Amino acid sequence: MLRFEMLATEGLARRGRLTLNHGVVETPVFMPVGTYGTVKGVTPASLDEMGAQIILGNTFHLWMRPGVDVVRQFGGLHRFEAWGKPILSDSGGFQVWSLGAMRRISEEGVKFASPVNGDKLFLTPELSMQIQTVLNSDVVMQFDECTPYQTKGHITTEGEARASMELSLRWAARCKTEFARLANPNALFGIVQGGMYEPLREASIDALVAMDLPGYAVGGVSVGEPKEEMLRITAHTPHRLPADKPRYLMGVGTPEDLVEAVAVGVDMFDCVLPTRNARNGHLFTRFGDLRIRNARYKTDERPIDESCGCYTCKHFSRAYLHHLDRCAEMLAPMLTTVHNLHYYLNLMREVREALDAGRFAALRARFLAERGRGV
Amino acid sequence: MLRFEMLATEGLARRGRLTLNHGVVETPVFMPVGTYGTVKGVTPASLDEMGAQIILGNTFHLWMRPGVDVVRQFGGLHRFEAWGKPILSDSGGFQVWSLGAMRRISEEGVKFASPVNGDKLFLTPELSMQIQTVLNSDVVMQFDECTPYQTKGHITTEGEARASMELSLRWAARCKTEFARLANPNALFGIVQGGMYEPLREASIDALVAMDLPGYAVGGVSVGEPKEEMLRITAHTPHRLPADKPRYLMGVGTPEDLVEAVAVGVDMFDCVLPTRNARNGHLFTRFGDLRIRNARYKTDERPIDESCGCYTCKHFSRAYLHHLDRCAEMLAPMLTTVHNLHYYLNLMREVREALDAGRFAALRARFLAERGRGV
Repeated sequence: MLRFEMLATEGLARRGRLTLNHGVVETPVFMPVGTYGTVKGVTPASLDEMGAQIILGNTFHLWMRPGVDVVRQFGGLHRFEAWGKPILSDSGGFQVWSLGAMRRISEEGVKFASPVNGDKLFLTPELSMQIQTVLNSDVVMQFDECTPYQTKGHITTEGEARASMELSLRWAARCKTEFARLANPNALFGIVQGGMYEPLREASIDALVAMDLPGYAVGGVSVGEPKEEMLRITAHTPHRLPADKPRYLMGVGTPEDLVEAVAVGVDMFDCVLPTRNARNGHLFTRFGDLRIRNARYKTDERPIDESCGCYTCKHFSRAYLHHLDRCAEMLAPMLTTVHNLHYYLNLMREVREALDAGRFAALRARFLAERGRGV
Repeated sequence: MLRFEMLATEGLARRGRLTLNHGVVETPVFMPVGTYGTVKGVTPASLDEMGAQIILGNTFHLWMRPGVDVVRQFGGLHRFEAWGKPILSDSGGFQVWSLGAMRRISEEGVKFASPVNGDKLFLTPELSMQIQTVLNSDVVMQFDECTPYQTKGHITTEGEARASMELSLRWAARCKTEFARLANPNALFGIVQGGMYEPLREASIDALVAMDLPGYAVGGVSVGEPKEEMLRITAHTPHRLPADKPRYLMGVGTPEDLVEAVAVGVDMFDCVLPTRNARNGHLFTRFGDLRIRNARYKTDERPIDESCGCYTCKHFSRAYLHHLDRCAEMLAPMLTTVHNLHYYLNLMREVREALDAGRFAALRARFLAERGRGV
């Protein structure tokens, strides 16, 4: 099930409430990525404390390990990973696409060799729906082909992008049929493709809207294109999607990307940036980014971000985090992950509060100015 | 300061209460090891929740990184690592001893090359006291020479062990003088040496007792000797120490070692086993040890230990932990460390409760029988 209520708007920006089988999600929302059934480096208790409302799981990875049988035995991903709130699963399409030369795409699906044990595997729209039904994720993504920015060394042509987008549409129809056949009680999202070509994006939207799916995603961005191209497509597509359905921008992005995408009508985000960057000592703060490995922090008694209320900032100094990082102590990525995720989740909380109060434009301006100030 | 009250005894076993500058420690107590200013893989909040009363810091490691100046700037280790309860620091003696061929011991101290940057360093009893004064640890250990079980390929002779033990006594006297000169407000412990030779152990005790230090440790066990030798010395030494002062058995050991050492009068323990083994998937339970990497756990829905109340056992299955370990996810060592530390801390809590109730003998028998049952 999925219910989406629109609580407020400001320009194209939307403040919504999404009700899913495992709970309510206030939007705009950032969804931490839990590839293998764990958001890297944090416990579910800690995610809960930070205010995470919904997390991701990766169908491809969970299919490889622990495998469908184990998740089925637990009645789905929620009990297996001890997370009671909503989960969104991707379709596996992006991961098989990322295998590059190791996979072969046909009308039927994608053939590839398991990166875990070399087994020959064949992922189809139907199989993706079957696996996601076992996961029992609240939001199921259609199996799609992620149109690359470059194809065989040249920028993907309009013809190539059209063929790819049309294949994704046929796969969307097969997903919808299989999802219904499986009587999956959750919500299936379609994914807009079309590369960097606005007319193709619009054709993709039209066809997907005709399928009347409960939500839509913008795919095929952050696939190697220049930043301006990414912003162009992000600005083009979301507001053309049905106003009464949630809109999810896949795999984006920096804090600035999120705020700008909210301004053009996006409701949902996921990205590995906060968790991956945390493990590399790259920290997000209200006043810009901070590289904790820099020697200047060796004796810095201040928290990462004096305005931050996370566990890390309430208790630990930059000097201590710098020390932990130098010693390769596990506590370093644990504490920096808490901070970065808290930063993203709190930013979206501030965005929601601003939308509630009709002052999103002011927040957006202040956010950009503060981020530019520097730590 | 240090105050030690004896609350109850049963045979040689003791139930005590140790008051230190940063708080009260109920004994017998297990002290988690926080080498570089962090107990590997757990936050201070989590340690607190598990009931940790006192943790260790390693003088040698903290001297190398972050260095004395950084800790001094923070007014000591407590604020730097955000741990408000008591801390015990070792003297650095064991670590320089562990450098093997890379160090040269003389009457004055130990010359060695820094394993971090190759700098030529010289650690003396006086310098160890100076560093530990900067750490402001509640319990300061004397600088000693850890007498090895083997010397140059043969079992250390009585003559060699005597020379080593007597050097440690002269260093103890220098430590006491320097500790007083520095007006260190904490408590200095002496360390009994003497290798595997009871008469030497007794001579060491006599000389240290004459110095009237506030507490005593048994050193030079778990240094490569056979288990029976370790048990022989553990049984010999503790009850010969002054009854009104705390007794600390350094670097020991398995759960069975701890319970047996309590039975012969030990009050304090530290060991890396629970944390290091957790990271290797070796888990302690009431009914014996469990290797989470074993394929038999792939589909096991039970917690690590059904009788355990830790965060890990309350929420996660063996199958999930097995999966996390296979995927090399950071959450695996995080959750197993919580379990293993909770196991050790809870075992000591049960020992204290049994001593309070005058039923330690019964607990000890039940503990050994249950541990032998198998998971």
